[in-house]
Order: sequence, then structure tokens, then C-alpha cells
Amino acid sequence: MSYRVAVSGASGYAGGEVLRLLAAHPEVEVGAVTAHSSAGERLGAVQPHLHALADRTIEDTTAEVLAGHDVVLLALPHGASGEIAAQLGEDVLVIDAAADHRLESSADWDAFYDGAHQGTWPYGLPELPGGRDRLRGTRRVAVPGCYPTTILLGLAPAVASGLVEREDIVIVAATGTSGAGKSLKPHLLASEVSGGMSPYGVGGVHRHTPEIEQGLRAAAGADVQVSFTPTLAPMSRGILATSTAKLAPGTTAEQLRAAYAAQYDAEPFVHLLPEGQWPATKQVVGSNHITVQLAVDEHAGRAVVVSASDNLTKGTAGGAVQSMNLALGLDETAGLDMMGVAP
Amino acid sequence: MSYRVAVSGASGYAGGEVLRLLAAHPEVEVGAVTAHSSAGERLGAVQPHLHALADRTIEDTTAEVLAGHDVVLLALPHGASGEIAAQLGEDVLVIDAAADHRLESSADWDAFYDGAHQGTWPYGLPELPGGRDRLRGTRRVAVPGCYPTTILLGLAPAVASGLVEREDIVIVAATGTSGAGKSLKPHLLASEVSGGMSPYGVGGVHRHTPEIEQGLRAAAGADVQVSFTPTLAPMSRGILATSTAKLAPGTTAEQLRAAYAAQYDAEPFVHLLPEGQWPATKQVVGSNHITVQLAVDEHAGRAVVVSASDNLTKGTAGGAVQSMNLALGLDETAGLDMMGVAP
Amino acid sequence: MSYRVAVSGASGYAGGEVLRLLAAHPEVEVGAVTAHSSAGERLGAVQPHLHALADRTIEDTTAEVLAGHDVVLLALPHGASGEIAAQLGEDVLVIDAAADHRLESSADWDAFYDGAHQGTWPYGLPELPGGRDRLRGTRRVAVPGCYPTTILLGLAPAVASGLVEREDIVIVAATGTSGAGKSLKPHLLASEVSGGMSPYGVGGVHRHTPEIEQGLRAAAGADVQVSFTPTLAPMSRGILATSTAKLAPGTTAEQLRAAYAAQYDAEPFVHLLPEGQWPATKQVVGSNHITVQLAVDEHAGRAVVVSASDNLTKGTAGGAVQSMNLALGLDETAGLDMMGVAP
Amino acid sequence: MSYRVAVSGASGYAGGEVLRLLAAHPEVEVGAVTAHSSAGERLGAVQPHLHALADRTIEDTTAEVLAGHDVVLLALPHGASGEIAAQLGEDVLVIDAAADHRLESSADWDAFYDGAHQGTWPYGLPELPGGRDRLRGTRRVAVPGCYPTTILLGLAPAVASGLVEREDIVIVAATGTSGAGKSLKPHLLASEVSGGMSPYGVGGVHRHTPEIEQGLRAAAGADVQVSFTPTLAPMSRGILATSTAKLAPGTTAEQLRAAYAAQYDAEPFVHLLPEGQWPATKQVVGSNHITVQLAVDEHAGRAVVVSASDNLTKGTAGGAVQSMNLALGLDETAGLDMMGVAP
Repeated sequence: MSYRVAVSGASGYAGGEVLRLLAAHPEVEVGAVTAHSSAGERLGAVQPHLHALADRTIEDTTAEVLAGHDVVLLALPHGASGEIAAQLGEDVLVIDAAADHRLESSADWDAFYDGAHQGTWPYGLPELPGGRDRLRGTRRVAVPGCYPTTILLGLAPAVASGLVEREDIVIVAATGTSGAGKSLKPHLLASEVSGGMSPYGVGGVHRHTPEIEQGLRAAAGADVQVSFTPTLAPMSRGILATSTAKLAPGTTAEQLRAAYAAQYDAEPFVHLLPEGQWPATKQVVGSNHITVQLAVDEHAGRAVVVSASDNLTKGTAGGAVQSMNLALGLDETAGLDMMGVAP
Repeated sequence: MSYRVAVSGASGYAGGEVLRLLAAHPEVEVGAVTAHSSAGERLGAVQPHLHALADRTIEDTTAEVLAGHDVVLLALPHGASGEIAAQLGEDVLVIDAAADHRLESSADWDAFYDGAHQGTWPYGLPELPGGRDRLRGTRRVAVPGCYPTTILLGLAPAVASGLVEREDIVIVAATGTSGAGKSLKPHLLASEVSGGMSPYGVGGVHRHTPEIEQGLRAAAGADVQVSFTPTLAPMSRGILATSTAKLAPGTTAEQLRAAYAAQYDAEPFVHLLPEGQWPATKQVVGSNHITVQLAVDEHAGRAVVVSASDNLTKGTAGGAVQSMNLALGLDETAGLDMMGVAP
Repeated sequence: MSYRVAVSGASGYAGGEVLRLLAAHPEVEVGAVTAHSSAGERLGAVQPHLHALADRTIEDTTAEVLAGHDVVLLALPHGASGEIAAQLGEDVLVIDAAADHRLESSADWDAFYDGAHQGTWPYGLPELPGGRDRLRGTRRVAVPGCYPTTILLGLAPAVASGLVEREDIVIVAATGTSGAGKSLKPHLLASEVSGGMSPYGVGGVHRHTPEIEQGLRAAAGADVQVSFTPTLAPMSRGILATSTAKLAPGTTAEQLRAAYAAQYDAEPFVHLLPEGQWPATKQVVGSNHITVQLAVDEHAGRAVVVSASDNLTKGTAGGAVQSMNLALGLDETAGLDMMGVAP
Repeated sequence: MSYRVAVSGASGYAGGEVLRLLAAHPEVEVGAVTAHSSAGERLGAVQPHLHALADRTIEDTTAEVLAGHDVVLLALPHGASGEIAAQLGEDVLVIDAAADHRLESSADWDAFYDGAHQGTWPYGLPELPGGRDRLRGTRRVAVPGCYPTTILLGLAPAVASGLVEREDIVIVAATGTSGAGKSLKPHLLASEVSGGMSPYGVGGVHRHTPEIEQGLRAAAGADVQVSFTPTLAPMSRGILATSTAKLAPGTTAEQLRAAYAAQYDAEPFVHLLPEGQWPATKQVVGSNHITVQLAVDEHAGRAVVVSASDNLTKGTAGGAVQSMNLALGLDETAGLDMMGVAP
């Protein structure tokens, strides 16, 4: 059978990526395609790469339009999904790619976002401990942020195993510009980005820090503290995260490697690379895969973990489809078997 | 049933793209994966984006290794395919992504390539007039060059309809660096390419000119003459071709548009864009699609056609798979339904 | 002595480049720095690369602020310079980097721009025949567009010598994004531009076509007709123009080369490259230089000329300073001796 | 008076940048221009952006050719400078841009380089405590590495002031490809680099770590320990370094900022940006400037310092010229007044 899936926020980068994946999904029929600002336009005018859906007309994002679907995938700005979900009924699978339902703590929400906290939905990262159980059969999914996805999959085995210390984890990550969406901001102009690197959102705790710490806490079973600095790289897609943590006394590279292998060897999308080979974003662009490698720096007493993902695919739309598959009882990898587009 | 396909030249960019597509092809089983310089290595070490095939071992390119496959796809340097094909037998489908068997004229071959001309195989561009008939059931396919693919699909309806003059066609195209392969040449270093445009191979007739003129001659039924200048753009993938031809007396934009629509409206991979929308390489990256748009410049008395493709997909590997599908009697679009990866 | 120069439009890319050059000019003192939207801000906040001027405060663009300068350089949107110039008095050197005063024909202006034609000022391209005479001592300069600068210097010797035909010149050029300024338009977002090529403004006569034809007409002494297609490349700076023209009967490569050498061998900024070496934008980025190379394609019967410039330097701000030097009676190369920043 | 300066390694990126700066230096006459592999070639063929020096002939790197210069600037591979310097005499100022004479510890040298340690020369980073005194009048200069330059100027005030702890400093930096030189390595091909980020040299202590720790030790007066991870970004030039250190108990943002201001307010090339403004590589590309900003992350208990430089200018050639100026008794900023080329 085929599930009818509506996509809201279809004019943006996340929505476009969701549609790219759903159009090729063997168990899905793409239903309504909605957006506010471009309602009434041909989808092909707004997302010219979506050839198979080019003649669809974008509709407005209303409860009427979204009614009658098995799944509604929301790729909207923060703050919009709660109200829509309430109108859809509890038997509809609602997948929210925005931040609204990721955080467990209302205080964390209040510190970084406007509006009231909308509650917490099952967190759509199946590879975290207990992740699949949370997602099977659920009718609500909070899609993780692209940074948290990349960083949590990079660090979870280390903190879960106790082979690194939970305090003083330092993370520096580089992202492509699509992570910031299609918003018309001066620092996102090609002339500004092309050929240069810049940091952003430094100078305090980043909006994604609570989500990262929440996920690591769940993996470790205890509080975890991170310093996180994001940077903007001159590329459209991809996140490369460098995460370092202090080695617990006596930790060896072999132990650490074994902990990662144990957690990831059976995973379809997370790849601990062979020794000597390092993650690079171009290995995974356009795919739901994420690559991970680690090293032990005995001089500094730190484990260094590098992880690479496509922020729009595994980091957003692919992760959403993976959770959708679990929620619907489908094969977790359905519609996600594409490999990276390289070079 | 499933066809066993061997891929030679698996360590290069074209070979990697062939494998990316074949691994997702519903009617294909990837057999031997061969290359000269990296024989014995893990495929994942050389093509780290091919996650599903990472544990394959690259074998040497020999007749023994290639024996026993239904299809052998050769992504080798020019000059190597003739000898291999001779060893494989006439019932094996041999698809040559190199230039060896594209040209009908030995004189054209001798003017631009070393070694003896190896003869002419059916030309793997189904969208040209008669293209599909040539390919159905064949056991030899010459995959077109990436420039000729993009330019021929851009110009064929114009010259075939007689709405433009066949002399004095002027083409300027920009390509990404992957078209030049993985060869270690100074002008292909990232430091040289990044952030700049440069021409190459100017100063005379380009190696691809005879192939372009041969294809246009077939479309027009008479000799066609082109001036072709390729340029190198700071991107990995993509070709954007701007082709201009003098308008035949009385030609209107409506007539020209109708000629393109007639030829392409039923094509699965060639898209005449709606008026006002223009091709861009990012619309088609990673896909077998090609987008086309045209305008009539009455001031200059020229038709201007812009076409965009991914040089590695529709321009090489996707085109090869499309021809393979026709040769094997499969659905022409099998394994080729992916859309562009944008942004 | 030192000339006081005011710069209006200081918050944009052209204005920033003017300030970069003027700050290093040995005969210039940078006076008022003005802009509308960012008046009151620290220049360093808006143009963080202008370290030597970082603590300047941007003032509003008013006649009062601009009064009392020897030179006023206007890098404003089209349509604004006429009124300001009228207020400044005839003894002030006013240099307009916008299109307002470039075109001789009001009909050409009306066809592509809003508002009334503001008249024609001496055209700031010293290397064209008669160019320097027009500029020496003038108190008004119209800075050429970046495309016309690059294309005119590429084609002028060919059309002036009569070695090519004046009809049916075909030009395809690629530009970096800074040519479009800092305007917040979706197609200028880094996610859209990065890693791809696209055309723009196709489908008719481009706004720069009349200026190109006007300049070529002056060089040739007769009407010239061009087809011009601009494309957008993933780089911040640079224009690479490929211009082709039909060879006049009997024209040889030697004759053509001699015509270019005769016109450019004494030029400080225009470089006919040695045979076999081709222009590339990275050779000239950040400099006032422009490189040119040509070839005769006997097969197609066309001369192919490639020229490369930095659209912001020789194409705008450097050209403006060069004209300023001539107008003020300074050494034409004063403040313009920087070379390209490569790689 | 004018100093005659010879440049060895003139065909590489560092050598080219040295020549770009020296050609514009008011007190310098460029003498011999030498290189091994391209000896006999026109400099313009190898470094086409160096228009003012294009007709120079590259000579072989021999003692005879280098004799008779006041300054010899060596931009050679590691291991070559010691022997050349020995032949030049002690009155010639020899500036070595390679690693040979940077390290004080032979053990550090032996751990990362081949061949015998060649001894230690005065370290060419004037902005470090005591830096200028070491360089004034010297006849030997070891030019710092581009990473150490960027990182040391980012961290020195923090460690020197005692406001951060000296153990467990974590640094992640992104560099453009020109830092790896013109060597033909597969991972430096444009197709590999364009549009992606990758780490390199991870998995242990990086070659630059001892130099970073040596410089920080000098600033702090005590041992300092760093974890350093370099990454490769898709750009030609620039380093963006994110350096974090644990806050000493009680350290406030105001104290830290005051320490940086005290050290840098009078520096001509190091700019502590105003609060709220962050370093980006495009601010400094092509210039000798370096921008620095810091934040106190109280949640993680760390200071975060971001610094941006052009690896070829302040990180290599500009730093070399700055040290040359000090050694010769010239104005430290002579020939270095260019600003960043942005956008």
C-alpha cells in the first residue's frame, strides 16, 4: 500500500529535500504540497530540480489542505507546527522538522526561542540508544537539528561507554549555507560566502547546545557539558563536525574504536570508516549516510571524533523519512538507498 | 531477472558515477569492479561515497575478470576499449564511455586522437532522431561526450527544423572540473580553479567539435558548422552550454518553441522549461535530466539556446545506463529516476 | 599635493572597492564617506576589510556632506547621480560609476532604464581610441560597465582594424556575483550560486548591449551588431568574456595578433598574453589589469577573443581611478600598481 | 636606498606571494627570481598574475645566482634552506619561509621532519612578546607557519595574561588549499575540494603542534598543551582558527578583552574587532592583517577566540616582509599597506 504524505514548507530547502526523497520513496504518494509565500505557483518554478513534481501547484498551508493525508511533514519556521498538529488529529503522523518539539526542557526552549514551548515529541534519531523504540508506531516525530544529528552520532558511543569524560567536550563544526535556509540575509549572499570561512553565533551558548547536551545526556545517563562553535563554509550542503573530549583515565584507542564499532556496525546509515580514512562532506552529499572516524591524541589527552553528514538529508529530510519509516512500520531504509553524489 | 554488469575504470570519476547508478538499478547486479592503478584496493578507499559497495575489492582489468558478465561498461582512457571488446565476444553488451567508437570519420579521429580508429558503434543518445532504434538490442554502445550530449540536445530541434541556419553556429560552454577526470594536472588544482573562470583548448578546433558536428549533421540532414569554446568553471559537476545560431528568414520565437516542444514533450529526461525559466546546472546535478530554454534575439538575428546537464550523469554515466536499458530491452528510465540534488 | 575625494555609495561593493584603492592612492585623501541606508554606522562594521578606514563614520549622501571636495565619486544605484552632480558645481570632478551618463542615445537609455536620460559624460575607458583625450581635464566621467569594459578591450582592435566583420559578433561572458551588488535577491544566495552556473537576462537584448555596441561603433567607425549572453559563475569577482567575430576575407592570425599588439603593447593595464597562454580571472583579481588572448578558428571562419578582468577593479573602481588620474593630470597609473591576488 | 632581494622558490604559491609584495615595496628592488623545476621559463608563464614581473626569466637556485643580494628570501621545500644559507655569508639577510629553523627543540624537529635539525633562527612573529627585539638587525629569520601565526596571535594575550588555563587548549582551524602548495596530490584536486570540507592530518599530533606550543610557552612563560585539528575548506586562501581554553577561576569577559586590547591596540596588523563583529577570512584576503575576536562561554567555562588571516600573506609572505623590514631597520609596515580584497 501507499501512504499519502503532505509536505508543508515546500518552497524552502528542507521542504525541497523532503520532496526529492519522497518522490522516489516506494511506499509513498506525494499529496498536498504547501507553502505560504509561494502558494499558487508551479512547484517547478520554485524548486526547478524536482522534475517529477514540476507541474504540481503549491497550495496554502491550511488544515483543510492538509486533511486526509496519512502523514504530514512540516518544514516550517519555528513556532508554526504546534497549532497545525493540533488541527490534524492524533491518528495522522505529524513530523516536525522545526525545533518546536525537540527540547524536553521548557527552560531551554525559553532561553533560545520565542513563544511558548509546545511540548516534546519523540526524537527522530533512531541510532541513539532507545531511539527506534521511541519511534515505532508514534504519530508525532521531532526531527533533530542538523548539527545535533551530526554531533550526537559522532559523540554518543564515546560518552555512552564512559571512555571519555562528560565535562568539557569541545565541538567546532562547519556547515554549508543551506542550513540557514532561503532567507535573504546579507551574510548569506554568494559574494560574502564564496571563498571564505566565518564563524557565527559565537559569543555565548548556541541555540543548538541544549539539544546536543540533551542527546548526550540520554546517551551517557548523566549530565554532559559542551562548548560548541559553528562556522559557515563556502559550500551549499554538508556539515563537518570536529568533537573532542578528554579521555577517561586509561582509555586506549582500541577500546574507543571497539565502542564505536559495537554501536555502529549494524547501522545502515552510520559508517565508522576504516582506520586511516577520514570523513568528508562530499562522501555523503545527497545521501542519508553519515561517516565517522576517531583518533586518540595522547599528547593532549583527548579523543578527537570527526563526523560528516549532509545537513539537508541525514541532517533533516532523510532523517525525517527514516523516522517516518519506523513510525509507519516500513523498512527503515525505504526510499533512502541513494549514495553520496561525488565528486 | 537481473543482469550482471562489470565496470572497468572504477577508480575514476566516470566509473564511480556508473557504479553509483548501477548500485541503485533495479535490474542490475554489480559484478566485477576493475581498475589498473588501484587493483587490490577496497573500493571504499578510492570511492568513499559508494557506501553500498565499499567492501568490494577492485580487480585488475583483464578479459578473465570481465568474462561472464552480461554487460561490460568501460570507463577507461581513450584507446583501451577496442582490444577489450574484441576479447569479450559479440553477445556481451559492451558500453564504451571513452571517445574510441563515437566518430564515424577516421579522419576526424586521426585529427584529435592517437592510435588507429577503432570503428564506429551505435551512438548512445536516444533523444536524437533515430537514436532509440539504433540502440535497441545492440551489443555495442558508444557513449557520447558530455559536451556533445549537452549541446546536441540543445541544438538538435533547431537545426532539424530548419528554423536556424546550419552555418556559423557559435557555442560557448562552461564545465565543472570532474569532466577532466582525476588526472593530476596543475590547472585542475583547487587553488587554481577555486573562485575563477578560465578557457581551455581554445585556439583551434576542439576535440569535441567533430562529434558535435556529426550529431548536428545527422539531425539536420546536411553539413553543420560550429565554433566551440569550452571554459572551466569553479564547480565539480555540470555543463552550461550557450549555443547560438542565425535565424532562418522569417523564423519566429513561437515556431522555434513549437519545434522544441514537439521533439521533447514526451522525453523523460529532456525538459524544455516554461517560458521565463532558464536552465542552471544545479537543477540537474546528480540526475539524468537536462534542461533547455531558448530565446530569439531579433536584434542580433540569432536564436540563443541554453542547456544544462550534469556531465557525469546525463553526460556520461546516466546516458550510458539509459542506452544500456534500451539495448537490454528494459524500461529506458530504469534506475534513472533520481532528481537533481539542489541546492 | 593631495586631492580630497568623497565617495558616495560607500556601503556597497563598488564603493568599497573605490575606497580600497583610494586609501592606497599616493595623491588622494579620502574625505566624506557616504551612504543612505547605513549612515551613522562605523565603516568597519559595513566594510570590514577596509582596516585603514574602519573608524570612519558613514555620513548621509547630501550636497552639504559632499561639498568641499575636489572629487566626488558616485557608486550609487542608477538614476541618482544627475541630481547630485547638478548640486556640486562644474569645477568638482564628478565620477559616476552608475549607468546614467554612459549612453549617447536617449532611445537606448529609455529602452533599458527608468527615468529621464541624464545626458552623456566623457566615457571612462582610456584605452579606446581617443579615450585619453576625452578624459584629460574633464570634470565629468561616466565609468563604463564591467561587461563593456571587458568586452570592448577584447574586441576593439579586431573591429578597428577591419580584420573581422562588424555584423554578427557573438559574446558569451561569465561574471562573479559581486557584479550584481549587495542586493538581497534569491538567485544571489550562496546556496543558489555555489557549485553551479546559470544564465541570466537572456531572452532578448541585454541592458549592456547598447553600451557594447556604442563602444565598438566608436572603435570601428561604423555600426556593429552583437549578440550578448551573460552567465553567473560561482565566484565573487571576475569576468571572463569569450567574443567571436567572423573573419574578414583573407584575415590571418598574424595580422590579427599584430593589430592587438599595436594597440596594447604600450598599455599599462591591458596585456595581450604570449601565444599559448590564456586569460583567466584569477590572474587579475584585485588588480586593474586585463588580459587578452585571441585565436583564429579557420574551420568556423571566426576570430575568438578571450578577455579577463576583475569586474570591481578594472571593471569599476580601478577604471574610475584611472579616469580620475587622467582628469586630474596625474600619472594614469597612480594608485593602481597592485597585481592580481592569486591563487 | 633600495635593497636587492632575491626570491627562491618563485614558482610556488608562497614564492609568488613574496614577489607580489616585494614588487610593490618602496624600498626593494627584486633581484634574482629562482626555482628548480621551472628554471629558464618566463615568470609570467608560471605566475601569470605577476604582471609587473612577467618578463623576468626564472633562474636556477644556486649560490652563484643568489650571490650579491642584500636579502635572500627562501620559499623552498623543507630541508633545503640550511645549505643555501651557509653559502650566502653572514651579512646577507636570509629569510626562510620553510619549517627548517623554527623549532627550538631538535626532538620536535626529528618527530615530524626528515633530515637533521638545522638549528633555530629568530622567529618572525613581531607581535609576540619580545618579537621585535629578536628581529631588529638580525641576518636570519625563520618565518612562522601559517597555522601558528594565526593561532598564536589568537591565543597569546589569553595565555600571557593568565586569564585562561594553559592545559587543555583545543584548536580547530580551517585552511584554504594554497597552504598545501602546488603539489599534485589527489586530495587537492578541485573536484575533490570544491563544495566540501574535510579534515587532514588528524589522528595524532600535527606537525604544527610543537611550533604552536613553543610560541604559547614563550608567551605564557610556562608549558602549554594544545589539541589541534586542521581542516581543509573549499577556498584558495585564508585560515579561520577557533581556539578555546578553559577560563582561569574568576576570569571575566571584560578582563579578557582588556588583555587583548592592551596587547593589540597599537599593532598595525592585528585587529581586535569591536564587540559583536567576528573575524572572517574574506576581511583579510590578500592583506597582512589578522582579525581577532573573543567570547567567554560561561556555560562551558571556556574562552573562545576566533582569528582570521590570509595564510599566504600574514601567514607567510607578508609576515616575511614584515620581519625583513625590522631586520633592515625599515618601517615595519613598508610595502604592507594593502587592505583585504573583498568581497
